[in-house]
Amino acid sequence: MSVPIAPRSYVAAASAIAGGSDNPRAFLERCLDSIDAHEKDVLAFVHLDIESARKSADASAARWRAGKQLSPIDGMPVGVKDVIETVDMPTGMGSPLFAGVRSGRDAASVKALRQAGAVIVGKTVTTEFAASVPGPTRNPHDLRRTPGGSSSGSAAGSAAGFFSVGLGTQVVGSIVRPAGFCGVVGFKPSLGAINRGGSHDFMSQSSQGALGASLADVWAALIEIANRCGGDPGWPGLAGPVPQPVAKAPRALVVLETPGWPKVSAGLKVDFDAVVDKLAKAGVKIVSRKQSPAVEAVEKAIEQALPLTRDINGWESIWPLNIYRDRDAEKLSRDMREKLAEAEKMTPDDYRRALAARDLMRQAYAALADIADGCVTLSAPGPAPIGLGHTGDPAFVVAGSALGVPALTLPLLREQGLPVGVQLMGFAQRDAEAVAVAAWINALGA
Amino acid sequence: MSVPIAPRSYVAAASAIAGGSDNPRAFLERCLDSIDAHEKDVLAFVHLDIESARKSADASAARWRAGKQLSPIDGMPVGVKDVIETVDMPTGMGSPLFAGVRSGRDAASVKALRQAGAVIVGKTVTTEFAASVPGPTRNPHDLRRTPGGSSSGSAAGSAAGFFSVGLGTQVVGSIVRPAGFCGVVGFKPSLGAINRGGSHDFMSQSSQGALGASLADVWAALIEIANRCGGDPGWPGLAGPVPQPVAKAPRALVVLETPGWPKVSAGLKVDFDAVVDKLAKAGVKIVSRKQSPAVEAVEKAIEQALPLTRDINGWESIWPLNIYRDRDAEKLSRDMREKLAEAEKMTPDDYRRALAARDLMRQAYAALADIADGCVTLSAPGPAPIGLGHTGDPAFVVAGSALGVPALTLPLLREQGLPVGVQLMGFAQRDAEAVAVAAWINALGA
Repeated sequence: MSVPIAPRSYVAAASAIAGGSDNPRAFLERCLDSIDAHEKDVLAFVHLDIESARKSADASAARWRAGKQLSPIDGMPVGVKDVIETVDMPTGMGSPLFAGVRSGRDAASVKALRQAGAVIVGKTVTTEFAASVPGPTRNPHDLRRTPGGSSSGSAAGSAAGFFSVGLGTQVVGSIVRPAGFCGVVGFKPSLGAINRGGSHDFMSQSSQGALGASLADVWAALIEIANRCGGDPGWPGLAGPVPQPVAKAPRALVVLETPGWPKVSAGLKVDFDAVVDKLAKAGVKIVSRKQSPAVEAVEKAIEQALPLTRDINGWESIWPLNIYRDRDAEKLSRDMREKLAEAEKMTPDDYRRALAARDLMRQAYAALADIADGCVTLSAPGPAPIGLGHTGDPAFVVAGSALGVPALTLPLLREQGLPVGVQLMGFAQRDAEAVAVAAWINALGA
Repeated sequence: MSVPIAPRSYVAAASAIAGGSDNPRAFLERCLDSIDAHEKDVLAFVHLDIESARKSADASAARWRAGKQLSPIDGMPVGVKDVIETVDMPTGMGSPLFAGVRSGRDAASVKALRQAGAVIVGKTVTTEFAASVPGPTRNPHDLRRTPGGSSSGSAAGSAAGFFSVGLGTQVVGSIVRPAGFCGVVGFKPSLGAINRGGSHDFMSQSSQGALGASLADVWAALIEIANRCGGDPGWPGLAGPVPQPVAKAPRALVVLETPGWPKVSAGLKVDFDAVVDKLAKAGVKIVSRKQSPAVEAVEKAIEQALPLTRDINGWESIWPLNIYRDRDAEKLSRDMREKLAEAEKMTPDDYRRALAARDLMRQAYAALADIADGCVTLSAPGPAPIGLGHTGDPAFVVAGSALGVPALTLPLLREQGLPVGVQLMGFAQRDAEAVAVAAWINALGA
């Protein structure tokens, strides 16, 4: 009997688990069936620890039976992007420089997940140091296609039902893009929302977040993390209700015509417009550049998001990339060596100018909060492209990263029979509101 | 022939080195003479690598001879606080949990120092994880007394002439306090001024900085670091002239009557007042709470600096301290376990309230920039106390940490024959201006 390629929501199973007709071990076994059937093709994992996962699931099942579950996600199977440290598994960073390296500790988020009772299934494939050079993972919807990156394995594994939620990180588009390509939900929270301790995502516009079977699964995992280990030091951290923000209709949404639109096919454009029409018919005021100079100002500002991001990430990566280059240059990809060489040509003042320009972009965007509850756009100019050598176009996703705002993708569209995400961007440090709007859009089945 | 206990300025030797009458190897040998004479008593080092230091100094000497020095600090002997990673030495964190552990990489600042040609002499003693529990280091001016902490070995080693500059970190008072106790210059820069990558000082009000033989040495080391690896991601980083900001008379200085004043002896108070008189006679307008309600507001606000700092540091330390406790609780000090247990009682909202209160304190302080160029106070209520079990009173130093402003200490006073520092606090991200004022005060010989 063939096992279908389909996400597997733990939250959807919650009442059955609480009632005893399902249990965490049985849930895990269904994930393992999917892994058994499809991992050989999808290649989502760098490291898989089935024995340890079964033990954790059994312990969780015992807690549920005793009514002593640690959280609503007690027993949830989770995949951990392989730039995030785990005490019991190596953390390979997608780089031969770290092959088999064990840090001997859990990252803050992983520790928090364990405290909440989650079941860590394994480490998922990342691009090299969560940047551009891809790993072996393939898109479960079409094995010739990229799953996107850099959270490739967390996207593909969620899509194939290997786990309910995969941890990811995003500094350009590494959560929203692969989630969109693989047809799962992706949530990149605001800057600082999730404690990045013990994770190789130290850059100033990087966030830790999650990809998963549903918005409810992704939120449930992240809020349990934040409530235990907080956000980054100095940041308020992800805040909001447990288990879920209640779906809430937005008064108004901005339709952002980001730099990627010329690359979007006519058919996909028609489908996206149909989503926007549906929102409008449900009573949402739609605001575009035609109605608002503030929108036009943002669109103009975020044209610089990609070059600014490249400069900022480059400067911020000089260390530790120079360490790794000096250790063994051949083990650092040519792409990384070239980026490092470019960054080393920058001066501190070049970097300061880029930061100042990014601040101006953020100010322009923040002004939209006066006229709307968020912005809708696509997660990519189309479905995952054919080929495994490149993780896809960042045109639609980089703005959310540079702006530091919550960005969500919902698997609402299909093109050539493949998933395409609708992206919702909210406002900085107002993540629960963005999730409430996303839940409403999702329920509308836009 | 006995070797005196005295700091050893590399900057003071610069022209002799450039002229060829001195050289980096000879300079290092003088440091090694001090180490040979006094390290057995002072115990500043956890790890000392004389052979490697000599090789580096020889290489530097060759560069100077060829006129190809890498920077003004090429050849400067430096000690590295043992929470900051070094590729060629273990990084022990002042904890048995990390005894002998090698991270296999240089921290950002260490890498930058090597790129600038500095000579890494060894790793200096830190308290446990740069917090409260002291290591073995003794104050070179009186071996019965604490050198202060947490940058204990960098302070004592600078004071004893083991190196010109020691790297340090400060989240409560870990640079300014030990520098004051040991009679050297300490400079804790603004938040984010020095890239903390690869250093165990991840807290939101922690800064990396330096302690050393003179203001010129300390500035020279830090600006060479910042110009190579920048500040923390997202921060402008330490900015200013190479080799030094020019001494500049302040128009006005605030005399801050911080919570520690009731503990100050009458004699020391008289000496401090004499410094203030000297500043006034040199034309500096002196502002105190009597003249300005803004000063009174700041003094009232910073009364909360210590409790807020304890809450904030506590919450931010839950991870990774919980990891270390779970690994081997017996190897984490009782003090740390108790702090962790207290922090684990906090809610995310408790932490958010503390952050908000700290922001208000920072706003109150920032208003002083309208009326003065900085604030003067002491670095501690008196000289280093007798005993090695405690690193001293944080009353005078915690405000600078919580405020995130540049804080400098100058060894201008003596009490009971022991050094006491005069502390200058500047304004956030205006470090070069604070250093220019400190240089002027220093030249005045206040």
